[in-house]
Amino acid sequence: MITWNNLDKLTSYQELEKTESVDLAAVMAGENGAERVKNYSVPMAEGLAYNYAAKKVDDTVLAALEKLAEEAQLTEKFEALYNGEVVNTGEKRLVLHHMTRGQLGDAVEADGVDKRTFYVEQQKKIAEFANKVHAGEITNGAGEKFTTVVQIGIGGSDLGPRAMYLALENWAKKNDTFKMEAKFISNVDPDDAAAVLNSVDVAHSIFVLVSKSGTTLETLTNESFVKDALKNAGLDASKHMIAVTSETSPLAKSDDYLAAFFMDDYIGGRFSSTSAVGGAVLSLAFGPEVFAQFLDGAAAEDKLSLNKNIKENPEMLDALIGVYERNVLGYPSTAVLPYSQALSRFPAHLQQLDMESNGKSVNRFGEPVDYVTGPVIFGEPGTNGQHSFYQLLHQGTDIVPLQFVGFKNSQIGTDVVIQDSTSQQKLCANVAAQIVAFACGKEDENRNKNFEGGRPSSIIIGEQLTPASLGALLAHFENKIMFQGFLWNVNSFDQEGVQLGKVLAKRVLAHETDGALRVFSDLLNI
Amino acid sequence: MITWNNLDKLTSYQELEKTESVDLAAVMAGENGAERVKNYSVPMAEGLAYNYAAKKVDDTVLAALEKLAEEAQLTEKFEALYNGEVVNTGEKRLVLHHMTRGQLGDAVEADGVDKRTFYVEQQKKIAEFANKVHAGEITNGAGEKFTTVVQIGIGGSDLGPRAMYLALENWAKKNDTFKMEAKFISNVDPDDAAAVLNSVDVAHSIFVLVSKSGTTLETLTNESFVKDALKNAGLDASKHMIAVTSETSPLAKSDDYLAAFFMDDYIGGRFSSTSAVGGAVLSLAFGPEVFAQFLDGAAAEDKLSLNKNIKENPEMLDALIGVYERNVLGYPSTAVLPYSQALSRFPAHLQQLDMESNGKSVNRFGEPVDYVTGPVIFGEPGTNGQHSFYQLLHQGTDIVPLQFVGFKNSQIGTDVVIQDSTSQQKLCANVAAQIVAFACGKEDENRNKNFEGGRPSSIIIGEQLTPASLGALLAHFENKIMFQGFLWNVNSFDQEGVQLGKVLAKRVLAHETDGALRVFSDLLNI
Repeated sequence: MITWNNLDKLTSYQELEKTESVDLAAVMAGENGAERVKNYSVPMAEGLAYNYAAKKVDDTVLAALEKLAEEAQLTEKFEALYNGEVVNTGEKRLVLHHMTRGQLGDAVEADGVDKRTFYVEQQKKIAEFANKVHAGEITNGAGEKFTTVVQIGIGGSDLGPRAMYLALENWAKKNDTFKMEAKFISNVDPDDAAAVLNSVDVAHSIFVLVSKSGTTLETLTNESFVKDALKNAGLDASKHMIAVTSETSPLAKSDDYLAAFFMDDYIGGRFSSTSAVGGAVLSLAFGPEVFAQFLDGAAAEDKLSLNKNIKENPEMLDALIGVYERNVLGYPSTAVLPYSQALSRFPAHLQQLDMESNGKSVNRFGEPVDYVTGPVIFGEPGTNGQHSFYQLLHQGTDIVPLQFVGFKNSQIGTDVVIQDSTSQQKLCANVAAQIVAFACGKEDENRNKNFEGGRPSSIIIGEQLTPASLGALLAHFENKIMFQGFLWNVNSFDQEGVQLGKVLAKRVLAHETDGALRVFSDLLNI
Repeated sequence: MITWNNLDKLTSYQELEKTESVDLAAVMAGENGAERVKNYSVPMAEGLAYNYAAKKVDDTVLAALEKLAEEAQLTEKFEALYNGEVVNTGEKRLVLHHMTRGQLGDAVEADGVDKRTFYVEQQKKIAEFANKVHAGEITNGAGEKFTTVVQIGIGGSDLGPRAMYLALENWAKKNDTFKMEAKFISNVDPDDAAAVLNSVDVAHSIFVLVSKSGTTLETLTNESFVKDALKNAGLDASKHMIAVTSETSPLAKSDDYLAAFFMDDYIGGRFSSTSAVGGAVLSLAFGPEVFAQFLDGAAAEDKLSLNKNIKENPEMLDALIGVYERNVLGYPSTAVLPYSQALSRFPAHLQQLDMESNGKSVNRFGEPVDYVTGPVIFGEPGTNGQHSFYQLLHQGTDIVPLQFVGFKNSQIGTDVVIQDSTSQQKLCANVAAQIVAFACGKEDENRNKNFEGGRPSSIIIGEQLTPASLGALLAHFENKIMFQGFLWNVNSFDQEGVQLGKVLAKRVLAHETDGALRVFSDLLNI
């Protein structure tokens, strides 16, 4: 029997609040620190490991977090979710994105079909389509092969697929699975579509229109933009476009598209990278086998999220520590810092995933909560960030918990030895150094050069960023955020906060405004 | 006589703390709101305007802020800075980046030369060099024209120039001043350099090595990476590289470079976009006239920063409101949200500019301060962000002040009419709608659809993003951050917080570690 309680009503949370806080600089010093780094590590899928040695936890705090996980029924709630309960209570929907990559529990039937079968079928259809495009069986109107794929989508139809594409582009080129370049059009700013269209050979481009509802303003506007460009180039737009949408959308059975691939209402936009939304563009760019490996990595990580023991469940542990930092220690933001240029847009994707899921003030019953929920998420790749905002992270007045990611090996493998080390070694040396610098600090009589330390971080360490390890990494954060939503007792799967702006923008465009909105409209020449 | 006092010691600050907070939703409603939008606007240079109608200020708060500006001697401190006082007390340096674009006050002599003359000479040298490259008078070893410029730099030598390049790329193409594509190598991750080198025609590329000290680890490593690539292609590296550095650096007089252009110790990396650091790459990419317009825009905005009246000084007003939000209202972060795809990396640049300048815990005398200083800065372009993290901004438990930027006209001018409006109108309608949605909210019986409002924002509105308006926009934020540093009484021009990580990374690479650092080094295979 599952009960949905607010965080501050849980006995175990009240106990957690009473635990003594850990002196991070002290516990990370000397051989004790070395032991922590060895022991405070949870294996993840695909050779990754979640290391939380530099978090402000000890056996006492971990025991309290374990109790919290139990009392909040995190495992039971996850089970309910993947077994098809209506966990998205706001929109009254199932939450099935895990099923795009595996069958974790019972078969789930909805809309008259077995959903796992449905998602697998879509993936197969995409694979067949992509293979035909790569083989030159599906071509442009002149019978020539497509050389570029352009995704038209915004939010979850853009950030996730774009971040995953960038994460694997160099890997695919190095491993001879690169099929075609991908570009992305998202913003309603006309310069976005115009610049992308100016940069591609439209005659050899295939466009993927992605909108679940088939009604997203930006996406439909950009579709028209693209159709104009195709028409102006004397091309038949319907020979250049495919759609990824829901079966019930106006796009689903339109003759305007070469093909349509489906997702459904049970896949939130920000959780759709492993559905047809990511599948179409990634399969066209890298081949369906690469996309399948990505799914396998995500599925393998999902299985770890089932573990009841928080020391064997990296997602649950990460979630619990995050809530401890946010609600007990009072830290308002979190930085995501991948030491991998390929993950340059991964923080932007996590920013959506996290802030749109858990940036809520009411619980799942619509009652205001008396505690803070989702933090601000931001980040850039290291070492770049070190030469930018790390100053504040080290010496600012607020403490910002940090999530590092690092890999032992680069993707391309070209490297150079300077001062007896490779660039890859320098990259890894920097992330190791940062963790210890943040945790331990360094005293200096000159207070301007003093580092207080006590700034917590965790790191996910992997062998290499591959399709499979990327899938595991993505699933880690998706599931972490889900568990945090359970802890905060919010609905992580709706986004009512985006509605008001849409309504008012329509009013502006219809010139049905007054007061401040009318004057702003005038100032902006609308 | 200037006195440097901590913020909380100022009488006017204590008075500010006692002012009654403004009910933003109430004051922005109805015709009162319309009047605010008309009146709460400060003209900026180059047709821009700073509108603060949706900030939590009224006549009482503004009067208190005006007193604070006076007591904190903001104008006098700015005067001292541009007249050549050693304002960067930590590093004992002058702060002269304003002089790269104009002469605000007295002539300043340092290192035996007039500094304005020195910066102008560098700009001229760059202009001549760039013109010769464009005319085919300076070529590669085979006598062929260069077609691509690649900047090698990190931090301030990367983020600012890259953001400015992206901001003007489409404008330059549209206005026939586009000379060559620019690429950027920054990260020590070997995949960064390898991927950029794989994407360019090295035989026709000119590389700009940017390092003030000539000792930046990442930059020197990437230089070797590039030299290897040139050598492997059978090319003479010295015919493909120029340096931007200080006159005293090892790079200054090396035969390894076609030419060297200089900045000096009085230009902080994050304030160097208007110096040779931005000048070389932007002049090569767009022509020196475009770079000159960019400087003129910045200089025009600098002049407005001289005004004592805060209602005629957009930078000072913005700074004061920011400190009020941070220290009195207690908001820990700020989002920068340009409604312009061309400004996609402008928030990342501001993130460095702001967080590296004011993320400090000690005052300019090295004494700990008893109040919070620089906030976390993050952001992405609109409308993209609306489909991502805006959920938290609208309905999260923390209030995040917002800085919008919007332009009446697009850069490329290609557009499409859907449902009776252009994409540009939709873009502008969205930013107008967001300001009002955040400020006023909307009540709903369903608390999940309820918007509390009271979330403050300001907007900078311009005609179009051009070289000149971009310069003004950049100077606005540079000067705002400077004024905030004065208010917090911190040294905004050093960055001691980046040192410890560098020291520890060297130790890791030399295998001179113990404890936690040794184990992390092992885990990362260093």
